Parts: sequence; C-alpha cells; structure tokens
Amino acid sequence: MTGTIDWIAADWGTTNLRLWAMSGRVPVEARTDPRGMSGLAPGDYGTVLTEATAGWPAVPVIASGMVGSRQGWSEAPYAPVPCPATPRLVPVPGDPGGRPVRIVCGLRQDDPADVMRGEETQIAGLLAAHPKFDGVACLPGTHTKWVRISAEEICNFKSVMTGEIFGLIAGQSVLRHSVEGGECDMPAFLAAVSDALARPERGYGNLFQIRAEGLLGDLPPQIARARLSGTLIGWELAATKPWWLGSDITIIGASSLARLYSEALSAQGLAPRSVSVEDATLAGLSAAYDRFRSEG
Amino acid sequence: MTGTIDWIAADWGTTNLRLWAMSGRVPVEARTDPRGMSGLAPGDYGTVLTEATAGWPAVPVIASGMVGSRQGWSEAPYAPVPCPATPRLVPVPGDPGGRPVRIVCGLRQDDPADVMRGEETQIAGLLAAHPKFDGVACLPGTHTKWVRISAEEICNFKSVMTGEIFGLIAGQSVLRHSVEGGECDMPAFLAAVSDALARPERGYGNLFQIRAEGLLGDLPPQIARARLSGTLIGWELAATKPWWLGSDITIIGASSLARLYSEALSAQGLAPRSVSVEDATLAGLSAAYDRFRSEG
Repeated sequence: MTGTIDWIAADWGTTNLRLWAMSGRVPVEARTDPRGMSGLAPGDYGTVLTEATAGWPAVPVIASGMVGSRQGWSEAPYAPVPCPATPRLVPVPGDPGGRPVRIVCGLRQDDPADVMRGEETQIAGLLAAHPKFDGVACLPGTHTKWVRISAEEICNFKSVMTGEIFGLIAGQSVLRHSVEGGECDMPAFLAAVSDALARPERGYGNLFQIRAEGLLGDLPPQIARARLSGTLIGWELAATKPWWLGSDITIIGASSLARLYSEALSAQGLAPRSVSVEDATLAGLSAAYDRFRSEG
Repeated sequence: MTGTIDWIAADWGTTNLRLWAMSGRVPVEARTDPRGMSGLAPGDYGTVLTEATAGWPAVPVIASGMVGSRQGWSEAPYAPVPCPATPRLVPVPGDPGGRPVRIVCGLRQDDPADVMRGEETQIAGLLAAHPKFDGVACLPGTHTKWVRISAEEICNFKSVMTGEIFGLIAGQSVLRHSVEGGECDMPAFLAAVSDALARPERGYGNLFQIRAEGLLGDLPPQIARARLSGTLIGWELAATKPWWLGSDITIIGASSLARLYSEALSAQGLAPRSVSVEDATLAGLSAAYDRFRSEG
C-alpha cells in the first residue's frame, strides 16, 4: 500500500523534468518527462506540469533546477553565499493548476563570480542526512561544482567546465575519431590525471597526439578516451587543490563520471564518499517542503 | 601584360580550394572555389579541378593540403621527419584533364606521434626565401604547428589544438553568451596569457567565471573573449616553451590569430617575424614545381 500523496517533488532541468509523488519523505511514484526548460516558452510550463502530473492530486509542488532561471518559468533569484543550506523558495504567481508551486532559489557568489542552480538542492539533501558534515561536496556534471560546507552553511563554491569541454572535444573535435566507442581504461585514466596534476601544460600540448597516435599507430579508443578524460579531470584537480587537499570529500553522483572523480581523488590519497544524486535531490526537496509548510 | 601560364598552384584544403595560374614564380590570376575536400567524394576531384581551372591551359598542377589525405583525391603518404624542406610529390594516376597533377606529401613524426598536411608547403616556402633560417616556425590555425628547422631540414614538430578548442568553447559552450560579438582586448589578452603561463591550472578552473561575471556583473564581450583566447594561447606557450624559448621565431600567418601569437611571444621578450600564408604557400608550391621539373 502506498501512502497519501501530499506533495510533488520536481527536478526541472534544461533537458528533462523528473517528478515524484511524495508521501512525506517517501516517493510513491516517479515520472520522467522529456520537456526540459530548453524547449519551453514561459507560457508552456503550467500546461506541461498539469499534463505531467495527471492523475495525481492538486497538492503543492516544490521544483528545483533551471526552471527558476531568468529564461525559465518564473525567476527564483540567486541567494548569496554564505547562506544556510536549507533552500530558499519563491512562489510561481497565481498557484497554477490550483495548487501552490514553489521554486528553489539558486546560489550566487560575487567574488570570485560564480552561480549554481539545482545543485543547492542536492547539498541541502546531503546536509539533511548528515547535519554535521564539515568538508567539501563535489558534484560532477556539465559544470562540476566544488562546494565548501561548514556549520550547516554553504560557505563558498567553484564551478569547473570539465564536463562540457569533454563533451565538445570528444564529440566534435578531430579527437572524436580517436575516442568514439571507447570505454575508459582506468590505469590510463589515472596516469593522465597524475600527469595533468604534475604538469598541466604538458597535457594540453599533447592532446593532438591522441589523434596522431591513432592515425600513425593503433591507439585503442578506450586508451584515447581515458587520456582525454584524465587530462581534463587532472587539470580540474590541479585547479581545485585548495578545495580537496586535506578535506572530507563527498561526491554527489553515481554515474560513471562520478566514479572517475572518485578514483582520481582516491589516487591522491583521499577517501571520498559517494551519495546518489536522486537521494540527495529528494532529501533536499523534502527539506524545502518542510520549510514551505513551516513558512506557509 | 601577363606572362605565359606554365603551371597551376593549388592549395586544396578541407573547406576550400585556392588556385593560382603561375608564370614561373609569378601568379597571374588567382581563384577561390568553395569545393574543399570535406564535401567531395574521390571521384569528384578531377571534375572540380577541370571546372575550377576553366580557361587556363592544360599545364601541370601542383597541389598541397588535405587533397592528399586518405579521405582525399589520391593519398600522398606522410614523409617522415627529419627530412629536407623541399616537398616530396606523388602523381595522381592517369594525368587527369590531360596534364600532370602532383600532390605534396604531408609529414609524420613517430615519437611523439604527430602529423601535418599543408603546413609543410608553407615551411618549404619560408626556406626558399630564407635558406639559412635556423629556428622555429609557428603556424597558427585550427591545429597550430611548431616546427624546428635547421640546416635546411625540418627536424621535428608539435601540433597544439588551440584553434579548434577555442572555436568549440567560444562557439558552442555556455561561454558563447559571454564572448559573442567581441573583438579581443589586447591588455586583457596579454594578462590572461601571462597568468596561464605562470599557473596553467588556475586558468582552467576560472573559465566558468567568465560566464558568471557576465551573469552577475557586466563583463564586456571583448574582455571575455580576450580572457578565453589568452588562457588557451597561454597554455599553448607553456606547453611549447622548449620550442620558443631562446629561439629565432617566424610566424607564418597574417590573420588576427597570428597577431595574437605575435603579441603573446613579444610579451615574453621574443621578437618574432611574420610572413604571409599566401606568400609562403606560393613559394613552397614553386619549390615543389621546380622539383617536379627537375625530376620529371
């Protein structure tokens, strides 16, 4: 038997919409809809939400992600760090679909300039599960986030474009011929991480050699892919050394990308823990729902 | 009065075909055709050449560039370095159009693996004009080449993917919003080069900040573009320091990209000279034509 559906959790990102019918903190049904922010006009969101939640009661909706950007449904302004981890919410005017809809605010940092939208909810989830966490959360993705957390506050953060740059080089540059179809060979990956950490500039100068070795020799795609990935993640670890060195690290993510970060950090002598994105997102949206109920 | 056309020079690259009707070493007419290698099947080249040279006599054609790649008209195998700078030629079978057609061989380096196709002709042109050149040629482009030359030989070379990576990040990543429409502010460019040379990893970690400063503040696109470009060229200079430090440098290129390399190297205390790509290409194809006439 499932419990009563008393609210709806929504992770509404650029490329899709994930929804959970919630009974307290327990998801009783999950749905995925392909209508992400990038394909929608401001007037579309209400209809999409009504269609995507068909059959569920008209209970409050708590949404995080790019839905709150200036180009999204209803802008949820960035909250400045440092700030408490519990998400700040803004209402979508007019209670669309006859129920309250609240969007989680992203975070901003003014110096150095940085922004996030969506990850703050996962961090809130991490802190809901581990209120005493004092360390750094690493959220691998298109723009990987490194977030320093202490005393139940988000202190500061840093975004690195590794995921996006890897996608462009592996998918569209001349290296696409060399890396396509390859898994990632772990020893070659860790060797590239180590080289890039020790001598970042050398790896940059050697990217074209990945292609040339494929043309002149017989470089297996899983080695080529590992070298590209390891070089980029190695640069990122070199750039973020003050964030992870000597820190308690939790990686939020269970994908193959998160595993690469975990292996790379472990090779530097750290012992990162991992939590799943879905668990963290649901816990964060649940914390936001608690705030909504207490604040009205 | 123009001289007799006695041969045709062709620079047949990936995206277009440039042709010169030559009288000895003097171009008497130039044409550009959009039918580059990337849009052609092997059977198309003969027809394209006949159409593009319409009205010119059926004299020998000397062609360099991607036309000689495995995916081109007729493969001109890579010649291994070290090798003399004078281009090696292979015939297109059957004298298409009733005249000899020769393609310039590219160059290969086995350790570390590297290849070039097209640039070897420009280097031959540089050496035809300056036979005693002893130093390093820098050829900025999609894949910038650094080429060590001594005693009229090409000793070794290194390709760096700066042009292609800049194009992908500036044109397709989240930074496209920040850099579009911008010229390149020279002081900001040189500052970014200097930072990237001194601390390559820091610039990598700060790429996303270019976008964030545009979102949260008012970063002018010419500054954003300069920071991205300076970061990448700074990494390249860090990776190629053994090639340029203390060397006599000639940049082959007259584009705005070549100017950036010239300014960046000058800021490191060098005094690079520049020669135009067209002059170098024509001088190199002329040297190849001389070889063709002497060898038959």
